Amino acid sequence: MISKKMKTMVENSSTIRAMFEEGKRLSSIYGEENIFDYSIGNPNVEPPNEIKDIIIKILNEEKPNTVHGYMNNSGYEDVREAIARNIKEKNSIELNYENIVMTCGAAGGLNVILKSLLNPGDEVIVFAPFFGEYINYVKNFDGKVKVISADTNGFQLNLKELKNEISQNTKAIIINSPNNPSGVIYSEDTIQQLSNILREKEEEFKQDIYLISDEPYREIVYDNAKVPCVLKYYDNSFIGYSYSKSLSLPGERIGYVVVNPKINGFKEIVSSLNIANRILGFVNAPSLFQKVIKESLNLEVDAEIYKKNRDLLYNHLISIGFECMKPEGAFYLFPKAPINDDVKFCEEAKKFNILAVPGKTFGCPGYFRLSYCISYEKIKKSLKAFDNLMEKYKK
Amino acid sequence: MISKKMKTMVENSSTIRAMFEEGKRLSSIYGEENIFDYSIGNPNVEPPNEIKDIIIKILNEEKPNTVHGYMNNSGYEDVREAIARNIKEKNSIELNYENIVMTCGAAGGLNVILKSLLNPGDEVIVFAPFFGEYINYVKNFDGKVKVISADTNGFQLNLKELKNEISQNTKAIIINSPNNPSGVIYSEDTIQQLSNILREKEEEFKQDIYLISDEPYREIVYDNAKVPCVLKYYDNSFIGYSYSKSLSLPGERIGYVVVNPKINGFKEIVSSLNIANRILGFVNAPSLFQKVIKESLNLEVDAEIYKKNRDLLYNHLISIGFECMKPEGAFYLFPKAPINDDVKFCEEAKKFNILAVPGKTFGCPGYFRLSYCISYEKIKKSLKAFDNLMEKYKK
Repeated sequence: MISKKMKTMVENSSTIRAMFEEGKRLSSIYGEENIFDYSIGNPNVEPPNEIKDIIIKILNEEKPNTVHGYMNNSGYEDVREAIARNIKEKNSIELNYENIVMTCGAAGGLNVILKSLLNPGDEVIVFAPFFGEYINYVKNFDGKVKVISADTNGFQLNLKELKNEISQNTKAIIINSPNNPSGVIYSEDTIQQLSNILREKEEEFKQDIYLISDEPYREIVYDNAKVPCVLKYYDNSFIGYSYSKSLSLPGERIGYVVVNPKINGFKEIVSSLNIANRILGFVNAPSLFQKVIKESLNLEVDAEIYKKNRDLLYNHLISIGFECMKPEGAFYLFPKAPINDDVKFCEEAKKFNILAVPGKTFGCPGYFRLSYCISYEKIKKSLKAFDNLMEKYKK
Repeated sequence: MISKKMKTMVENSSTIRAMFEEGKRLSSIYGEENIFDYSIGNPNVEPPNEIKDIIIKILNEEKPNTVHGYMNNSGYEDVREAIARNIKEKNSIELNYENIVMTCGAAGGLNVILKSLLNPGDEVIVFAPFFGEYINYVKNFDGKVKVISADTNGFQLNLKELKNEISQNTKAIIINSPNNPSGVIYSEDTIQQLSNILREKEEEFKQDIYLISDEPYREIVYDNAKVPCVLKYYDNSFIGYSYSKSLSLPGERIGYVVVNPKINGFKEIVSSLNIANRILGFVNAPSLFQKVIKESLNLEVDAEIYKKNRDLLYNHLISIGFECMKPEGAFYLFPKAPINDDVKFCEEAKKFNILAVPGKTFGCPGYFRLSYCISYEKIKKSLKAFDNLMEKYKK
């Protein structure tokens, strides 16, 4: 018998995963070329060519016991120092290796942070629309999730509701920018206002409230958009980062956590992250790829490919009557469904061989997510299917 | 403020880690060449030479999006199938890819298993001497650890005590063979008797009791010793495995879990492991190294190097009057301290520049652990220090 918690999870196993299986089933009936699978956020742009040469150079030049060996649970100091310097240069903020913990992707990083912070029953606030896994990560440590409803007028943060809902039990806030699923970047003004509210509430409740900024899409931005660095606006803050998208290395599980040097109880928090990394079973971020990252700090995937996809799909959907924010980053569109019931709409879309994820999954019913990290040709081919789908709702 | 659980951990941060820092301090005073650091289980034997060529071959022949991309959370099917076939051939047991979940080392694997099994308050039994991290892994999921005291007459399992201590609350048993810290392999007879007891107790309590065999040292064995495969003796069983020692790749975090095909509720358990891998933040075992493993199934580090170390150190310690089991595997000696207080003895050893870990850390006071995964020359040089240390207790 598995545990009660896991039994529920196995029974309701994720909508996104079910969609993936459905994609395979449809492909086997209609042929893969005729299925428009917009359901999975798996980067399709190739990693930069240099990655391969960097790996081979490391294998040729360094001792295998060092390349593949244990190190401090927080990662190699030289790698952490190089990352710290890189963030410092981009944001004019004082950082060194002690502020960086190498993690198994952002998912590993968020779990390590939450393990360090949460007592059972502590509340973590997320803003709809949000990445569904946050709920699982918080529940791993018996925390309670409170959802702030979406500000559908622009998909910035609903700060008015936050102000009412934040309480004595609030231990942390998770934000995700550029946002999955909306593609919106939280503006400097939004981050500033959020920080002001959190400081007021810290004062009011006489306790720390931590801001966790999950930024796996930070480098996937368009039209020279910039993602404000939360560390500059709010002291009790962390960043979770992953190279899954910026270098298209999602399978390698490599990322890091940044701890704000001004965070309350810095030393204790940094020790705790180190221990949490060890005892949760990560032990350390994969060693070879830590070294690869050190040599890849100025590399990025070609985000122009995603931009072309965005423009093609966004412009078409708008032209046929969908309502949608123009994404500034990430590789998702989050249009409004033409009927209130987003689950029913996604079922309908399947009849046109379009796989999309209902907004409900992201705490934002009435909308749906399209992951446009698929080939340009496939998107082009799918446009007619969107026409036919929308036709149904124009009568 | 960090969580209460983590606060305690930060305060008592692991004895082994403290020892590591002490080693650095002593090195800076006396010179690294004069410090005999037997405290850390970090493999010093190089990975097989072929590993490098295998990595380069994969990078040259496969598409980067596949090599570094997402796959099923349980791992690439072809890799899992190859591992299943390998275990099947060695042990004449029916297995296929569905029985294998690729994990971030054995530490990741054990956490994924325990997340799947434990409800808060469930009891997990470990046998002294045991790897101290088991306690943390169990506590991650609010389980309770019950320790069965060591059978110091040979360091097999104290099955008599198990029989009395196992209860309605017992959900799982963890064993570790070859054992860290004793180096003992649990015999076929021991595993058979353990299995009989577990079956009796399952019958008596009308519930499943799971056996988890943690086997990171399975391939580090001497004098043709064999590690019995628990899957053949007990149906409700798992194996946790890691390539950290057999291929000297501890930093890469690559290993797997085997689920016994005859386990009760196989499908549900396998789904649960898959989900647990995802939501704990591992997502999947690192992708490139999954592929490396597929091509390395017949490779092993040169265990003769460890054997030479064992023989040199073991023979010398016995000759000067230490009592110690001759290890059949792993790279640890676990001698009896010449005084009852193992912590005091390890403090004394430090005065002779010998760093050892007190048996208390492994739930077995009165003994101490020496990790002989250091250079042969260093061991040779240290023998005189052991002579001088033992001299103190001969008066």
